[in-house]
Amino acid sequence: MEGDTITDLCTPALVVDVDIVKRNAQRMTERFLKMGVQLRPHMKTHKTLECADIMTGGSRRCIVVSTLAEASFYADHGFDDILYAYSVPFDKVERSAALSERLTLFQVLLDHPDALEQLRKRPLRDRRPWHVWLKLDCGNGRAGILHSEPEAMQLAQAISETEGVELTGVYAHCGNTYNCRGIEEIQAVAQETTTFVLQFMDKLKAVGISCKSSIGSTPSCSHPVKDMACLSEVHPGNYVFYDVQQSVIGSCSLEDVAVRVLTRVIGHCPHRNQLLIDCGWTGISLDGAGKLPTGYAMIEGQPNLKLVSMTQEHGRVEPISDMLDHSKYPLGSLLTLIPYHSCATASMHPVYHIHSGGRLVGKWLPARGW
Amino acid sequence: MEGDTITDLCTPALVVDVDIVKRNAQRMTERFLKMGVQLRPHMKTHKTLECADIMTGGSRRCIVVSTLAEASFYADHGFDDILYAYSVPFDKVERSAALSERLTLFQVLLDHPDALEQLRKRPLRDRRPWHVWLKLDCGNGRAGILHSEPEAMQLAQAISETEGVELTGVYAHCGNTYNCRGIEEIQAVAQETTTFVLQFMDKLKAVGISCKSSIGSTPSCSHPVKDMACLSEVHPGNYVFYDVQQSVIGSCSLEDVAVRVLTRVIGHCPHRNQLLIDCGWTGISLDGAGKLPTGYAMIEGQPNLKLVSMTQEHGRVEPISDMLDHSKYPLGSLLTLIPYHSCATASMHPVYHIHSGGRLVGKWLPARGW
Repeated sequence: MEGDTITDLCTPALVVDVDIVKRNAQRMTERFLKMGVQLRPHMKTHKTLECADIMTGGSRRCIVVSTLAEASFYADHGFDDILYAYSVPFDKVERSAALSERLTLFQVLLDHPDALEQLRKRPLRDRRPWHVWLKLDCGNGRAGILHSEPEAMQLAQAISETEGVELTGVYAHCGNTYNCRGIEEIQAVAQETTTFVLQFMDKLKAVGISCKSSIGSTPSCSHPVKDMACLSEVHPGNYVFYDVQQSVIGSCSLEDVAVRVLTRVIGHCPHRNQLLIDCGWTGISLDGAGKLPTGYAMIEGQPNLKLVSMTQEHGRVEPISDMLDHSKYPLGSLLTLIPYHSCATASMHPVYHIHSGGRLVGKWLPARGW
Repeated sequence: MEGDTITDLCTPALVVDVDIVKRNAQRMTERFLKMGVQLRPHMKTHKTLECADIMTGGSRRCIVVSTLAEASFYADHGFDDILYAYSVPFDKVERSAALSERLTLFQVLLDHPDALEQLRKRPLRDRRPWHVWLKLDCGNGRAGILHSEPEAMQLAQAISETEGVELTGVYAHCGNTYNCRGIEEIQAVAQETTTFVLQFMDKLKAVGISCKSSIGSTPSCSHPVKDMACLSEVHPGNYVFYDVQQSVIGSCSLEDVAVRVLTRVIGHCPHRNQLLIDCGWTGISLDGAGKLPTGYAMIEGQPNLKLVSMTQEHGRVEPISDMLDHSKYPLGSLLTLIPYHSCATASMHPVYHIHSGGRLVGKWLPARGW
């Protein structure tokens, strides 16, 4: 209940420090306001209305989503100027068309001529155009057409020449920043991605095509390079929560991480030198396996404890060195997990408990599904 | 919509073959009916009303749950005789008391004297007793008091002697069957667990205490040993869906696996010899990493394909050997994933799509949270 403290919550519980969320959002907003670049925050980490309001400064405009379920959820609640930043899946063309016809500005993304053909075959009503971003792969190695291949330029030209379709922009996700350690490495990837995109924009200009440009990832947008000022937009998302992974990469410090999973000690296993906690993989996800010396998460204020394994509703915790003094961790006592990957952890929770200084101030309910 | 085929679904989608579910449920029911042992099916894999109805033959009685959210969900829908098989967490004593006072038979479980003390301090109204199972660790190495330690007998005696508390039974989860390969190894663990529990029952009898006994796990209950006929109950759960993991252990064959995740090809990456699919870890979970030659799942009918990595909404698929012939997998075409661990996969989905012979017959909505 509001007014209670987070320590009153039944566990496992995802708790979000709203003051840190607001600070993270404000810093990112101010950073790109100064650079003159439009911030289009990504919703995929939290998928809630309240956090979207914080990230958009209440405008409910100019967001990115990862699923059509998110797009519909936000559209249903008065959001607009939504970019569905996912190579438009053929089974979702009709639902995307419906959103395009309903909102002032619904934007899709593609990286293949077959997808363009799907859009061409489904003209929007009232002569509305499909607003299309071209997804480039600038070294990330996931989705996108390779920026260096002639097919990329051909596809950009085809988009701009197809009736009923408009080339809105060029989009690159520099998820390869997740392999970086430290600001220097992050900025090298940010620079490379920016350079590739800007070179591509020059090539487009040379054939008479002008459109927007956008790159994003939380690491690159937490430490932008100067040339990013030449982009139209950026689209980071995780920054609003951050997590241990981002602190390891160098995007943030641990003080910037807004989310925790509260858990309680539910078993003493001195014969195995272990504690049991009531957080299994349903409470924190299996993301981060093998990545941290402290196991699947960090345990706040307990640098010698490691979350070594989990089943559905149990976690096994043991000391990194020495024997555990179980009397320090009575049954029922709280431990606080700092998630390795907040997107993955948040996705496991149907409710987020929001607090300010440890005092509960509300609940956020995320959108789920596709 | 009902009547459509599963291939009409937007992906990723969890689809459940209701005929296989019914067959799996019926086989388990008949197996223990013949043995004269009460089957108390576990709900943790699916957490739905419809599947619970199938597993209980419509009686809505005699189930096990892993969370109090499940317990409340089932209680709210007319289920009773519910065992909350989780070392009763101290923060949930009050909610457990409320369920004990509301249902005809709500049962809890504990493995520590401190938990017994928590129950003693919260007597139930109308002189109702707390119905308590003692959780034994018979080699599983997770929760439970070690069956071989004198403290186990002492705790059993303390439960039976505490006012307002009743020793309902002795409970062991033989999750160590998950390390087995083949029926012989499964039955060795089943035999060992059964023997330890029955020896414990004998010791209880010697001091004048009689109560029920229960062991469980899908592998052991799929291939029970004769001595299990001496138990009062068994409590498997996963068997209703099964999964690749269970087929690897030897609990079932792949034909018994009732669940799939449908996914579509959304990208061709010939320069990386990869396909992209629209199923990331939100669609199938990260469980099973490094366990299968085919990666995080099996791809039905495609033994040469491997799901090598996933991000939130993308999966990368590549051939185990040779070069991929992308023309065999056009953009938009369906692939069918057989989950490594159906409990983990189901936990990612807010809706299960139910079919009979590929024709949609309904949706099941699972309970979530704690």
